[in-house]
Amino acid sequence: MEARIAIAPSAEIGAAYGRANSPDLDLLRANIEKAVTAGGGVIAPPDEADGLVWLIPGEPEQLRVALDGHPGIGWVQFPWAGVEKFAPNGLFRRPVTFTCAKGSFAGQVSEHALMLTLACLRSVVRQARTPHWSPADPRSLHGRRVTILGGGGIATELVRLLRPFECRVRVIRRRPERVEGAEETLPSTALHSVLPETDVLVLALALTPETRHVIGAAELALLPADAVVVNVARGAHIDTDALVEALRDGTISAAGLDVTDPEPLPEGHPLWSDPRALITSHCADSAEYVMRMLCERVERNVRHLREGRPLEGLIDPATGY
Amino acid sequence: MEARIAIAPSAEIGAAYGRANSPDLDLLRANIEKAVTAGGGVIAPPDEADGLVWLIPGEPEQLRVALDGHPGIGWVQFPWAGVEKFAPNGLFRRPVTFTCAKGSFAGQVSEHALMLTLACLRSVVRQARTPHWSPADPRSLHGRRVTILGGGGIATELVRLLRPFECRVRVIRRRPERVEGAEETLPSTALHSVLPETDVLVLALALTPETRHVIGAAELALLPADAVVVNVARGAHIDTDALVEALRDGTISAAGLDVTDPEPLPEGHPLWSDPRALITSHCADSAEYVMRMLCERVERNVRHLREGRPLEGLIDPATGY
Repeated sequence: MEARIAIAPSAEIGAAYGRANSPDLDLLRANIEKAVTAGGGVIAPPDEADGLVWLIPGEPEQLRVALDGHPGIGWVQFPWAGVEKFAPNGLFRRPVTFTCAKGSFAGQVSEHALMLTLACLRSVVRQARTPHWSPADPRSLHGRRVTILGGGGIATELVRLLRPFECRVRVIRRRPERVEGAEETLPSTALHSVLPETDVLVLALALTPETRHVIGAAELALLPADAVVVNVARGAHIDTDALVEALRDGTISAAGLDVTDPEPLPEGHPLWSDPRALITSHCADSAEYVMRMLCERVERNVRHLREGRPLEGLIDPATGY
Repeated sequence: MEARIAIAPSAEIGAAYGRANSPDLDLLRANIEKAVTAGGGVIAPPDEADGLVWLIPGEPEQLRVALDGHPGIGWVQFPWAGVEKFAPNGLFRRPVTFTCAKGSFAGQVSEHALMLTLACLRSVVRQARTPHWSPADPRSLHGRRVTILGGGGIATELVRLLRPFECRVRVIRRRPERVEGAEETLPSTALHSVLPETDVLVLALALTPETRHVIGAAELALLPADAVVVNVARGAHIDTDALVEALRDGTISAAGLDVTDPEPLPEGHPLWSDPRALITSHCADSAEYVMRMLCERVERNVRHLREGRPLEGLIDPATGY
């Protein structure tokens, strides 16, 4: 079949958003158009489209209106891995196929998680902020007990990067499928029993109502005092106030955060001055990489749509990710 | 044969040094004594000893006097991987077997080199020193061209840690033996031709008169502008003034230094305030790890001495390491 693909924002849908964000968005749209064409699709106006690439962040109501107005659209592609802002209003329960970029950016995000882990174990924030010679006894990652929350692309890639360190890796995930290379794959109910045996806790799961504040004061208290917490998923997975306290009173030893809650983390927030917290500003993956991986996914999904094959990055309406 | 081993400093040799450094040194000596015994040796006074474990740093003249006074000592074990302070006075040309700890600490040092590399590529110093949200486009290590100077234990271990990143790894070393897992092993003369094709340059070689300032202004100028230089060997491998300038004028993009010249790096040195320089204070390996690995080497060498087998960490008198 032919795949006629619309892109929003455009003159027809979400034009107001488009005007406000021109240069980066123009480049993104141009690249997506190329990817659609490379996949054998054609760019079409929304009222003639089978599919829609939705580039407008955080406007589920606009998307609902767009789909109501264009009932021919049977597939929506998002450019992000996490789509928690679109789940709450029941959008994913419509008879439309939704796909996102989940798994696409896992290579660089898992690399960032490894960097945050090593840097926390080796007190890099303290060293970077101390302008004189000050040896600190480092901690090695070799043989540590690593627990990864989430069994998606980041977990799979991180397990691969950790292999030479001979860590004991456990993955906790909702679905029962084993993550290859992990010593154990456990259900969410195992979290509290695993935390006391965890040296490095990595958050790499989707944000849903169930996983919001999955790590709070109780969970932090279950970790050993020398544990390191790394978050490359969403800030709201962690109760930030509980984390501030846990770092301050030595409940855990360090945190590496690529995401925060609130995000951006406001100036003057206590985490900014805590040498046990390494904060990178949601920049685990490079702009070039995100563009390339996204375009590859769009191209493949357009091709799969034409050929009637399953799409990549399918959002499960039941779980919202 | 029996292995009678003396340890210096002791009441008989280098007592002055011993008095000045008691608690750490007492623990070290106690552990070395246990390792000697575990290897089947006995602790002996220097005038009855076959072997000597020399724990006094930077006093080659004292060691020369000790060996002159105790001609029965046929083997000297040092506790460090680098013994450049003992090479210059011709000590290693005596008819005595010298061994050091080279290779023993490679596991944690190579891990530190990987951390420095990832942290430099991901602008961690800048992020750690900026107390507000400031996304920085990260650079991935995946597929990068890595050149390692030195083909010893650190290179071998680092190649292993880099494997999941699918880097193009070249090793430059004096000896012709291939380093397993590296794409190419090249002689020292290849340095200048390899530098322009290097994204990450890791120094992991011994310090000798030939390798002092092996990286100076000319070598830094040959690297691409986005190259990262990592030094986990000795500070004097790099011409520090040339490095300061190369970072300042953008000849290279970042440096991760566990060692400096001078060391300790004095307060107020321009490297302390440069956000492109990540300086850790010669702390790639933990005290616990160094003690454990050193004792394992002493135990094995005592056993090998008794059994007439080759010792580990042999110093080559011709090269001085």
